[in-house]
Amino acid sequence: MFVLVNLKAYPCDPVEVAEAAAEVAKETGVRIAVAPQAAHLDRVAATGVETWAQHVSPVAHGSHTGSTLAEAAAEAGAVGTLLNHSENRLKLADIDGSVRAAERADLETVVCANNPRQIAAAAALEPDAVAVEPPELIGTGTPVSQADPDIVTDSVEAAASVGDVPVLCGAGISTGEDLEAAGDLGAEGVLLASGVAKADDPKAALEDLVSPLV
Amino acid sequence: MFVLVNLKAYPCDPVEVAEAAAEVAKETGVRIAVAPQAAHLDRVAATGVETWAQHVSPVAHGSHTGSTLAEAAAEAGAVGTLLNHSENRLKLADIDGSVRAAERADLETVVCANNPRQIAAAAALEPDAVAVEPPELIGTGTPVSQADPDIVTDSVEAAASVGDVPVLCGAGISTGEDLEAAGDLGAEGVLLASGVAKADDPKAALEDLVSPLV
Amino acid sequence: MFVLVNLKAYPCDPVEVAEAAAEVAKETGVRIAVAPQAAHLDRVAATGVETWAQHVSPVAHGSHTGSTLAEAAAEAGAVGTLLNHSENRLKLADIDGSVRAAERADLETVVCANNPRQIAAAAALEPDAVAVEPPELIGTGTPVSQADPDIVTDSVEAAASVGDVPVLCGAGISTGEDLEAAGDLGAEGVLLASGVAKADDPKAALEDLVSPLV
Amino acid sequence: MFVLVNLKAYPCDPVEVAEAAAEVAKETGVRIAVAPQAAHLDRVAATGVETWAQHVSPVAHGSHTGSTLAEAAAEAGAVGTLLNHSENRLKLADIDGSVRAAERADLETVVCANNPRQIAAAAALEPDAVAVEPPELIGTGTPVSQADPDIVTDSVEAAASVGDVPVLCGAGISTGEDLEAAGDLGAEGVLLASGVAKADDPKAALEDLVSPLV
Repeated sequence: MFVLVNLKAYPCDPVEVAEAAAEVAKETGVRIAVAPQAAHLDRVAATGVETWAQHVSPVAHGSHTGSTLAEAAAEAGAVGTLLNHSENRLKLADIDGSVRAAERADLETVVCANNPRQIAAAAALEPDAVAVEPPELIGTGTPVSQADPDIVTDSVEAAASVGDVPVLCGAGISTGEDLEAAGDLGAEGVLLASGVAKADDPKAALEDLVSPLV
Repeated sequence: MFVLVNLKAYPCDPVEVAEAAAEVAKETGVRIAVAPQAAHLDRVAATGVETWAQHVSPVAHGSHTGSTLAEAAAEAGAVGTLLNHSENRLKLADIDGSVRAAERADLETVVCANNPRQIAAAAALEPDAVAVEPPELIGTGTPVSQADPDIVTDSVEAAASVGDVPVLCGAGISTGEDLEAAGDLGAEGVLLASGVAKADDPKAALEDLVSPLV
Repeated sequence: MFVLVNLKAYPCDPVEVAEAAAEVAKETGVRIAVAPQAAHLDRVAATGVETWAQHVSPVAHGSHTGSTLAEAAAEAGAVGTLLNHSENRLKLADIDGSVRAAERADLETVVCANNPRQIAAAAALEPDAVAVEPPELIGTGTPVSQADPDIVTDSVEAAASVGDVPVLCGAGISTGEDLEAAGDLGAEGVLLASGVAKADDPKAALEDLVSPLV
Repeated sequence: MFVLVNLKAYPCDPVEVAEAAAEVAKETGVRIAVAPQAAHLDRVAATGVETWAQHVSPVAHGSHTGSTLAEAAAEAGAVGTLLNHSENRLKLADIDGSVRAAERADLETVVCANNPRQIAAAAALEPDAVAVEPPELIGTGTPVSQADPDIVTDSVEAAASVGDVPVLCGAGISTGEDLEAAGDLGAEGVLLASGVAKADDPKAALEDLVSPLV
């Protein structure tokens, strides 16, 4: 299972969360990555944790003011990027363009989507993985694996039918139990945010989260 | 073969093109539809031609100022709608939402896309058809079937692999020869615009276009 | 006072509201306009009511699929257009472009904005009028003139400082009392929607609304 | 005169340009700032040069994946931000929101716009400065001060009429002569990009640029 922690624009200290994630990853052998603000990539990568961008723009080098260039994210230490998060929905053509930009910069890609049909569409764009996140569950603390298990199994099936693309499960994940349930439904990882980033003790939150895998 | 004539925001008389299309459709038995501005749907539908919208919004009845409600397009006479034209690219989630809105209002859907990968993604959203239109060929007069035949055959294959979704061929189509070439590559229709809408004699242009089918 | 009724994408019968508005306007001499879906402009204008578009695109004749061409709205009977409604926020450059497009097609313009600072910005683009609509009050039934009278007087002052642009007052307007309060705060009109469009008896709602003006 | 160098997504080494700018600023006393990719803010700020963001999002701390949080840009060393560059046009309401976000994080703001009318609108949103950049001149090497001097003087007048907001002059600036001409037209600074970022010798380019000020 791959654990991807999205720091969004939270008021957390990105370095504190990154250090906690690096330690738990080292202690447990579980793959854990942290996705901070682009302006924080450098300092997060310096902790040694696997570092992801939250977004890259569908552009190559050139005249693109205010873009997030995949190459710049990679130079700052990112090895992967989220795309099309429900808080940052992209045009279909731009998801395609951003996945290609990420490939060019050797970044792994996880494309988010809302339902099995959109998961199939996202998978058709050939990212490294997709993540299903019903928007109505984001930040609720109710795990999708419990509120709507069919959406996870249907997404796994949809992604498999298009081309064997692994599925991450997002929305409402915070505990080891949630992670285990996601795995039982066929997910190969989890995407989470407030459960770790807003925890009083991010390290303890991560340890609990990955406990079923240890 | 289905012939879909997109009037865009051209300075043509939409009723004149619609009447020409209605006559040619009647005389030849070929299915021909015309997609005018939303504000012209009523008068185009009144000619008896098959009438399409150029876009509908991913919304239901409600507080959506400036939207194009699928039900309103249908009431004005539309029986189908284009979506995600390269001049009107949509977010992935909104293409899904617009296809669902169109279904609710009994409108057929054709989702446009730029390349075989995006065609597969579009087909995964379960529209009635998809249309491949390489943006670099739009309005050039160079038919995609001649400039880049592989993009058509690859799109047909991509759409078939996802779920047997018919493919229309757009970009640069203007003559009967172009239409025939598109059909030979596996397209079940053509999407065209300036070749008819800007023709001195739209009826003659349509007659030439459909001549291989008669 | 100018009364502009925005039908949004409501499930109301646009012709019924338009007929009611036409009658009340005739009976009372108050200027009342109705802004339906683009696809309904024709039939609304046929009632004889002053007809407005909810939006026009910042484009001229040309290759703009899915746009709302100002000229097409005008041909269908519109004599004015809303722009930048809070449900359809536009880029600054596109508001400028849409006001220019509307001028070209002889459409009056009302540019909406959220607060006095944005009202000044909107007024600087030289529309015929601006409308202040705090998004948090839209559809609440609480009139802005009561919930936040300062936002109206500050908007009137802001618009005047930029160039004598009249201000309409939106959000929460439904009764004659609301209209009167808006006028007392310096507004030269009201923008309303659900109060008329969702009324059981649109004519009675309009009669009540304009009663202080008769 | 303030010299603001926008590195866009150019393939230049941001640290090399930053070091050159820091040296020229120190040697000449001219105020020079560099605006790199968000992911490069840290390393550019480490050179000691005045560092600007190319954009910040209209958001506060919270659930905003893929945003550029003003506070994160400030923590990485930015002291100012461009907004609404013609390559990154924003909604009117979002320019307002981004200027407010920047103020909250103690970032100076320069809002770009295309023409005197939009300059007045941008100035009404109360940024620290505005920049006029006719899109048709960007990257051409033809300075706006030469191609269209009226647009600069009209912008200076428009910004002054709204509230004494200083105007920077962008588009086509690369030499000391261009900078001097901009100053003669009333500009209090210049916004430039390729002239420095793509120069073989960025330091020599900057030295030539600021030579009239020394």
